[in-house]
Amino acid sequence: MTADTVTQVLDHVDATLDAALDRLLTLLRVPSISTDPAFAADCDRAAEALVEDLASLGFDAAKHPTPGHPMVVAHDADGPEDGPHVLFYGHYDVQPVDPLNLWHHDPFDPQIEDTPAGRVIRGRGAADDKGQLMTFVEACRAWKAVHGVLPIRVSMFFEGEEESGSPSLVPYMTAHAEDLKADLALICDTGMFDPQTPAITTQLRGLAKLELVVTAPDKDLHSGMYGGAARNPAHVLAKILADLHDETGACTLAGFYDGVPELTNAQRTQWETLGFDAAGFLGGVGLSIPAGEQGRSVLEMIWSRPTCEVNGMTSGYTGAGFKTVLPSKASAKVSFRLVGSQDPQAVLAAMRAHVAARVPADCTVEILDANGAPATVMPIENPAFEAARQALSDEWPRPAAFIGCGGSIPIAGYFQELLGMDALLIGFGRDDDQIHSPNEKYDLESFHKGIRSWVRVLDGLSRL
Amino acid sequence: MTADTVTQVLDHVDATLDAALDRLLTLLRVPSISTDPAFAADCDRAAEALVEDLASLGFDAAKHPTPGHPMVVAHDADGPEDGPHVLFYGHYDVQPVDPLNLWHHDPFDPQIEDTPAGRVIRGRGAADDKGQLMTFVEACRAWKAVHGVLPIRVSMFFEGEEESGSPSLVPYMTAHAEDLKADLALICDTGMFDPQTPAITTQLRGLAKLELVVTAPDKDLHSGMYGGAARNPAHVLAKILADLHDETGACTLAGFYDGVPELTNAQRTQWETLGFDAAGFLGGVGLSIPAGEQGRSVLEMIWSRPTCEVNGMTSGYTGAGFKTVLPSKASAKVSFRLVGSQDPQAVLAAMRAHVAARVPADCTVEILDANGAPATVMPIENPAFEAARQALSDEWPRPAAFIGCGGSIPIAGYFQELLGMDALLIGFGRDDDQIHSPNEKYDLESFHKGIRSWVRVLDGLSRL
Repeated sequence: MTADTVTQVLDHVDATLDAALDRLLTLLRVPSISTDPAFAADCDRAAEALVEDLASLGFDAAKHPTPGHPMVVAHDADGPEDGPHVLFYGHYDVQPVDPLNLWHHDPFDPQIEDTPAGRVIRGRGAADDKGQLMTFVEACRAWKAVHGVLPIRVSMFFEGEEESGSPSLVPYMTAHAEDLKADLALICDTGMFDPQTPAITTQLRGLAKLELVVTAPDKDLHSGMYGGAARNPAHVLAKILADLHDETGACTLAGFYDGVPELTNAQRTQWETLGFDAAGFLGGVGLSIPAGEQGRSVLEMIWSRPTCEVNGMTSGYTGAGFKTVLPSKASAKVSFRLVGSQDPQAVLAAMRAHVAARVPADCTVEILDANGAPATVMPIENPAFEAARQALSDEWPRPAAFIGCGGSIPIAGYFQELLGMDALLIGFGRDDDQIHSPNEKYDLESFHKGIRSWVRVLDGLSRL
Repeated sequence: MTADTVTQVLDHVDATLDAALDRLLTLLRVPSISTDPAFAADCDRAAEALVEDLASLGFDAAKHPTPGHPMVVAHDADGPEDGPHVLFYGHYDVQPVDPLNLWHHDPFDPQIEDTPAGRVIRGRGAADDKGQLMTFVEACRAWKAVHGVLPIRVSMFFEGEEESGSPSLVPYMTAHAEDLKADLALICDTGMFDPQTPAITTQLRGLAKLELVVTAPDKDLHSGMYGGAARNPAHVLAKILADLHDETGACTLAGFYDGVPELTNAQRTQWETLGFDAAGFLGGVGLSIPAGEQGRSVLEMIWSRPTCEVNGMTSGYTGAGFKTVLPSKASAKVSFRLVGSQDPQAVLAAMRAHVAARVPADCTVEILDANGAPATVMPIENPAFEAARQALSDEWPRPAAFIGCGGSIPIAGYFQELLGMDALLIGFGRDDDQIHSPNEKYDLESFHKGIRSWVRVLDGLSRL
């Protein structure tokens, strides 16, 4: 295979970018919000659309039902026998869109906008994960259009429950291990280090989460008639949540830091060379004071330290005006980002104990939706990592970096545990993409050079 | 005036109860929720209905516009010149009805229900305050039907903003003091001591309230990308709320207990003779452990001690499923019940300081909707109090008691300050009426004997 082989495909990508963009916009118009049952039919529509598109590329593509939203699995019908076999993973579901009033337009009416930083694709899912998912699909489309056959064997695996805890994922992967097994997993759900520096994410934080509901009186009460004498569940919940951190920013749960490793000197040195702009990172969201553990750098806080965050809480009257109610219930959704060998079940157990110790004897507490996945660390000695790093470095202004990621992508760990496959986490998102927030966007450059990057990675892997 | 005079009216009340009940149900069908702008037209409809009804009784009745919901003022056109002139106060607005799913039927489709404790009128406003308001109107209707002329001069004053902080009340009373001035105010917005024991409420807690909104990042963030490094406003709010009480149940605000009097021995003795069932009071709402200040009785906690209660709080994602968002904002509605000479403004200032001391330098906090009214204590040496106590004791199984009330009825204080009138707070509600809660009810006995009680009170006052 010559350099021309790749150049021809890259030229085709450049020449057909508008058509690729139209295909992405069509997918973005489907409101596939997986956590809200009201959008189940839309999730199915998104899966169906991907099956049809992959079939049109000559893949054996099918939609597989689960207790939740369907899985999409596709195998290249005419791929080469030799070379590594890769399984590309992405997710077609998206986050909820509230608060809707903060969006500048309908989240599911995606727009191409000119911004001072360049053109962007604005809409829910543009970056997380439909835009990223399509960079790989379009790379395959272009390669096949030019050469007819992909340089390596490619299968694809898309789920529709990534934003709602992936309840069907492990059962499905376990039941269909043979169908999914390949030599290497490719995952496109992460970001660049900065707009000039592509990245391969080699360590991911795990996630443990639960919802707790405290019930004090068995009905909402008049705070004048009962206030003072009747227990207020909002006070109980506030105490539970306030006690989760001490004055140094550390989490107080018993044994929380068991299995949390210190950075190696090598890691510390490589991260320092990245010249991360902590002030700019916080300043970009209107903050200036790092909130995490004292004595840790911001990069450690988001890449290599565990966290404990309240993701939502509610109690009593939250509507317009004022209602002097003494609430019956108070609830909170709490999640933990995990690192090293922290055990999600141990963390959840410590949280249950923390809660139980703060709920008065005449109140009750329900723990709902408790689950978790451990952190993941990739073996960068696998030659695929260096091949991919070289391919990315050829496409972008600056050499690719091996980085950590604060987010949790449990699938990477599942590929290791259930299918014995390492995963290359390559993505083209940027810190300002506002994923999970109003006005999510994906830079047109991320999409365009993302497609080109995968063309180069496919080529690089074919040479192993 | 002979006993027959009264007996004839009481007999008429008994004979026409069904018609009185129908009039109340019609008023209850109007969803006059004052705190929600969506129901403004309904509030106006309720006011209009009262004007028409009072006019039909020969009152000079009119609806008076305010910046909020209208006031209803009515003067008896043909009342006697001699004897005391009373101004009866009530409110035609009601509390919001959420959580709607906990109601057994439409809150504004009132039903007469048979319960083990007797027949009840079930619906929003049945007890607070439409049912109580109508007990007085029906007493006047019956008296006029039998004798043509009331035994004393009667005026009425109804507002439609009592459940939303009465923003227009003081300006209106100040501007129309001459029109409203009478010798004595009658207020029907309180309860019985127990189902056999009527009560005149002679001390009321005041109220101070505010809403606070903490903003940390300027947008909702991905808790994986920013968690640990970016300040979480839900954590800041939890700390603010958790720190409002110490481990003994006391409020920690600086100077909070300034002006809080201890019970006199006389009060303590009278309250002890009431034989209040603290276990039953808490057990009735599913609780067993008094939540207030250690060393205080439950009756003190709800009648004579100040409180600090969270009435509502919200942050981040509170919908179905889970969203690992790091919220931009967290807010809470907090109110304080005040006693003795506690200064509402001083309490609000202490709260502002408490909040400011706990908000990091790179976060902001807004304080909204902050206002308050002090506690009220009535001069029971005024002979009208003993006359009313005797009248109530004649109607009910047990003698009437002078009691305290945990609720706040600022109007009582305004009558003293702005119009120089004492107020007789007489009501027929019960602890289990679930006012401000789903399935609010008013006992048919409360309505029936409430009307009869006012007939006796009008007679009693005419003898002064």
